[in-house]
Amino acid sequence: MPNHMWLRIESFQNRRVKEAIALRKSDERRNTGRIIIDGVREIERACEAGVLIEEVFYSPTLAPEKARQLVEMLAGRNVTILEVPKRLFEKIAYGEREEGIVAIARSPTFSLKELTLKSGPEAPLVLVVEGIEKPGNLGAMIRTADGAGVAAVVAADIRCDMYNPAAIRASLGTIFCLPVVAASSAEVLEFLQQHALKCVAARVDGAVAYFEEDLTGPTAVVLGSEAEGLSPIWRQGWVKSVRIPMLGRADSLNVSVAAAVLLYEARRQRMVSGVSAQV
Amino acid sequence: MPNHMWLRIESFQNRRVKEAIALRKSDERRNTGRIIIDGVREIERACEAGVLIEEVFYSPTLAPEKARQLVEMLAGRNVTILEVPKRLFEKIAYGEREEGIVAIARSPTFSLKELTLKSGPEAPLVLVVEGIEKPGNLGAMIRTADGAGVAAVVAADIRCDMYNPAAIRASLGTIFCLPVVAASSAEVLEFLQQHALKCVAARVDGAVAYFEEDLTGPTAVVLGSEAEGLSPIWRQGWVKSVRIPMLGRADSLNVSVAAAVLLYEARRQRMVSGVSAQV
Repeated sequence: MPNHMWLRIESFQNRRVKEAIALRKSDERRNTGRIIIDGVREIERACEAGVLIEEVFYSPTLAPEKARQLVEMLAGRNVTILEVPKRLFEKIAYGEREEGIVAIARSPTFSLKELTLKSGPEAPLVLVVEGIEKPGNLGAMIRTADGAGVAAVVAADIRCDMYNPAAIRASLGTIFCLPVVAASSAEVLEFLQQHALKCVAARVDGAVAYFEEDLTGPTAVVLGSEAEGLSPIWRQGWVKSVRIPMLGRADSLNVSVAAAVLLYEARRQRMVSGVSAQV
Repeated sequence: MPNHMWLRIESFQNRRVKEAIALRKSDERRNTGRIIIDGVREIERACEAGVLIEEVFYSPTLAPEKARQLVEMLAGRNVTILEVPKRLFEKIAYGEREEGIVAIARSPTFSLKELTLKSGPEAPLVLVVEGIEKPGNLGAMIRTADGAGVAAVVAADIRCDMYNPAAIRASLGTIFCLPVVAASSAEVLEFLQQHALKCVAARVDGAVAYFEEDLTGPTAVVLGSEAEGLSPIWRQGWVKSVRIPMLGRADSLNVSVAAAVLLYEARRQRMVSGVSAQV
């Protein structure tokens, strides 16, 4: 391992430490174009996806074996390793997530224009979520979208930072594994129309139950925020509205739960009809 | 309104205030058999379900109109109303949830033995979750179970307090609307067998995809904790294991998302086959 890539830091006053801590704030992430990734699995998934890791904070006394191996691997790829004592690491790490490793990376920038929906063995399935405020909800939906074999997640009129540490965490790092793009709702609608995706929007007053709609063709499942639902822009003739039956006392599901119900219904239909890419 | 039921408290040293704050701890809830309920909707649902409200803390300057109406209604039912200033209320209320009203209630005690699965128009659908540690996850699953028309939620070998404020909150108060019982996994298995419920357990290595199993008869959907999955006790010949297809990088769904996928598949099958209680 080249020595110059492996630095030991002991001071809270160190510039890199201060910069890392500042990256917990969304303004700082936006201004610098950098993000902070906690956890072995999350960093591994970012690496696999080709996210540029700039430097890694590493606390040997905290790190389990898998974190040590990851650090060795990153050092081998010329990533700067910053070894810090536990007391310092705890200031940099997020919440209780102390696996002894935190990475600073370039924020992926992926725009709607760059999004290509490959014509694979099955028709693309896209998840569109509008007006999401809670990064944890976004991350949870991305994790589910990854499981359901979604081609891309599109955040329309997003009201939080996509690469908020809570989003990365809730996604288990899958936020790096599939295309996740942000755009205005108007742009997203145009995109969906251009790509001839069937737009299936979940609404409390949806015309039919979600499972009555054919979801085996090119499909975008569209969900609004829990607080406000979908904005009026989605009330267009070509947008199908579906409802999720509510048999109890509450009148809606959590948005990430609603996403799961719809995406897995699409997956089920595709598997049952034999058009699914995988079984 | 009878005056003696409406007290004004100004001091942090007041016994009732101290007791209310102490109820944020699960030990205190267990020892006293009392719980603390935040939020208008949650308190309303508890009332409707017949939960015994002992007293209510109320901060008029914080409370929206719907909270005022609820307080009037409760006062009319001889519930003691404790009017407190904002600074005091904020010590009693949970997190950011400041609707100006918090209720102290008797904890519902509902045991597995008391659970009767009514033979209604459709076969019972039960959700069993084992080893849950996070009250928020339990609450989220109860909210989904309420929506999917589940007859009861059974928490097997639960590792958190069922009436933790985070569980009540995540359930939107539906925790009071359907039977939720705790028991050991052995007791739960015996109960399911006695009631001739088809036991459908979600496992990563499940024998068939979840939608290949018939879920229209008397059914228990069984899920383990995210960290550990189901304990070996569930590996019995009569317990069916099903898998949720995972097409991406992560190898599992969030437990509350998995519950939603399975429960809504049962709901779908029941609606499509015409055996559902409601459409």
